[in-house]
Amino acid sequence: MGKPKALILPPKSRLDEVCSDTCKSLINEHFDPLWNETGVDYTEEELAALIGSAEIILTSWGSPAITEAMLEQAPKLRVIGHAAGTVKGRIPPTAFSKQVRVFSAAPRIAHSVGEYCLTVLMSSLRYMPTFDKQVKAGQWRVSSLKGRELAGQTIGIVSASSTARAFLKLLAPFHVNVLVYDPYLKDEAAAQLQVTKASLEEVMRCSIISIHAPKLPATYKMVTKEMIASIPDGAILINSSRADVLDEEALIEELQKGRFFAALDVFTKEPLPEDSPLTKLDNVLLSSHVAGATVQGHLALMEGVVEDILKGFKQEKTSMEVTQAMWENMA
Amino acid sequence: MGKPKALILPPKSRLDEVCSDTCKSLINEHFDPLWNETGVDYTEEELAALIGSAEIILTSWGSPAITEAMLEQAPKLRVIGHAAGTVKGRIPPTAFSKQVRVFSAAPRIAHSVGEYCLTVLMSSLRYMPTFDKQVKAGQWRVSSLKGRELAGQTIGIVSASSTARAFLKLLAPFHVNVLVYDPYLKDEAAAQLQVTKASLEEVMRCSIISIHAPKLPATYKMVTKEMIASIPDGAILINSSRADVLDEEALIEELQKGRFFAALDVFTKEPLPEDSPLTKLDNVLLSSHVAGATVQGHLALMEGVVEDILKGFKQEKTSMEVTQAMWENMA
Repeated sequence: MGKPKALILPPKSRLDEVCSDTCKSLINEHFDPLWNETGVDYTEEELAALIGSAEIILTSWGSPAITEAMLEQAPKLRVIGHAAGTVKGRIPPTAFSKQVRVFSAAPRIAHSVGEYCLTVLMSSLRYMPTFDKQVKAGQWRVSSLKGRELAGQTIGIVSASSTARAFLKLLAPFHVNVLVYDPYLKDEAAAQLQVTKASLEEVMRCSIISIHAPKLPATYKMVTKEMIASIPDGAILINSSRADVLDEEALIEELQKGRFFAALDVFTKEPLPEDSPLTKLDNVLLSSHVAGATVQGHLALMEGVVEDILKGFKQEKTSMEVTQAMWENMA
Repeated sequence: MGKPKALILPPKSRLDEVCSDTCKSLINEHFDPLWNETGVDYTEEELAALIGSAEIILTSWGSPAITEAMLEQAPKLRVIGHAAGTVKGRIPPTAFSKQVRVFSAAPRIAHSVGEYCLTVLMSSLRYMPTFDKQVKAGQWRVSSLKGRELAGQTIGIVSASSTARAFLKLLAPFHVNVLVYDPYLKDEAAAQLQVTKASLEEVMRCSIISIHAPKLPATYKMVTKEMIASIPDGAILINSSRADVLDEEALIEELQKGRFFAALDVFTKEPLPEDSPLTKLDNVLLSSHVAGATVQGHLALMEGVVEDILKGFKQEKTSMEVTQAMWENMA
């Protein structure tokens, strides 16, 4: 029995960002690969023409979406591995009924997001941007501004998603108290995570709040104007998931009062327009939807997926596989 | 037997920053306190006039230094507790020969410094100040700038001081590799800390370097021009201890080349003069000697000292006591 035919969709320039040399060796060792040598992403038509003999398809950002029609043309396909985040909109759910196993590197990206959350939280607690600006302007301790410690604080988490769990792991040495709002979080899981389940209203009244909810019809603007108004003075709000889960207009209005601080990586309109009121505020730390984007995190994506696929082939426990049951509540 | 007479030197405004209500109750419960009701710090003369009957003296920033002459006037003195950092220059070493026990809250301050180190390290790794500036200027992903993860990296530590140990605790979930230069660090202690002992030269060639060395004749400019030149391109250097341990002029010259990044909280001249070349650089994150200064950290200082003094009275193991042997290598 020969090695399974694998179609690797990303062209070299893109592949090199998400696929380590170790991973390339793994692919060559275990699969019969067809690398994309065209220098650019395949078009849908090119992919459709290649898919007939593929047993494995490896995709990433920029790869064409796999359509239902393509699946009809791919009788040998057993596995799709996506070396990037969500597979929704990229792989049709009919894959499951066709016994095609689906893998996504989203759990690996979660760690980069967790590091982002800790980064912006600590930077905000310690007023680092303000101190830097002051010292560079020759102002040495001009105010009584004093940083705050993270240790022992209470943190409210909206949704116990994979990014929230990655963040929680990094918080361990700080012995913080964590309140989590997540209607799907079971009591035993909460106990294992050492968090306390709470209502969304309770979480939004914490002095540190981190949003991790997926973008779904059920989460659309679930953080209401009233909840945003209830954020305590001096609080820190972090959003690394999706802007649509909160009322962005209400958030901007409240931030303009200078009552609290926000670290925002996501916006309802991206790129964030230069004339957004957010760009004028000192009490925000902005970034360009990069919470999950790191050199090391990206380079590990394809390797994670390929290793997990190999486990799946050996009937071992997988950690990056997406099941039909998970699909429903995925962003 | 009555409660021991305690002289609390900081006036109310200053005391409220370093002494929690719990600590005030502790003092009232266990000691016979004389609070400073003058509204300002005592002068040396005022202190000398009060010291005769004191069994315990509690001091903090701003309190007058305790001199050898004062110790001669204080036959009942058993304990001096300093709710701040170093006791050098504030308490004469003759205290030890007079059987006066000395306590310092420096170990509690170390935790705030550890949080500072993680804060500036992660902020630098993720280029947060740059992303914030870009997004606020309407520049959305204008460059291929990509943040870096902390997990799995190698970190070089200069001196296994209490601040370094506090930093190491926070690094636990990141599974980093740590090289430590410290001529006093024993092999067993290194193993316990899960670090590898290394030469100063090796440590200074790491891509993340954090300086924790005390200011002593032996550490004066021990990080030489040559070592600074050997810092790798793209590295991150953190200094939260003292500027005198490195050749600041050489550091500035090297930073002006833009080769690496530095987060600096300490400078040979403080306040840092506005015309310092450091204030003109984008590849530095500056702060005003505040690595150890946090609201929560300060408020815990006197309580830590008082609790430790009470342990000492009960012949229990103390954690904030300064012994004559420790004195020699203290900053």
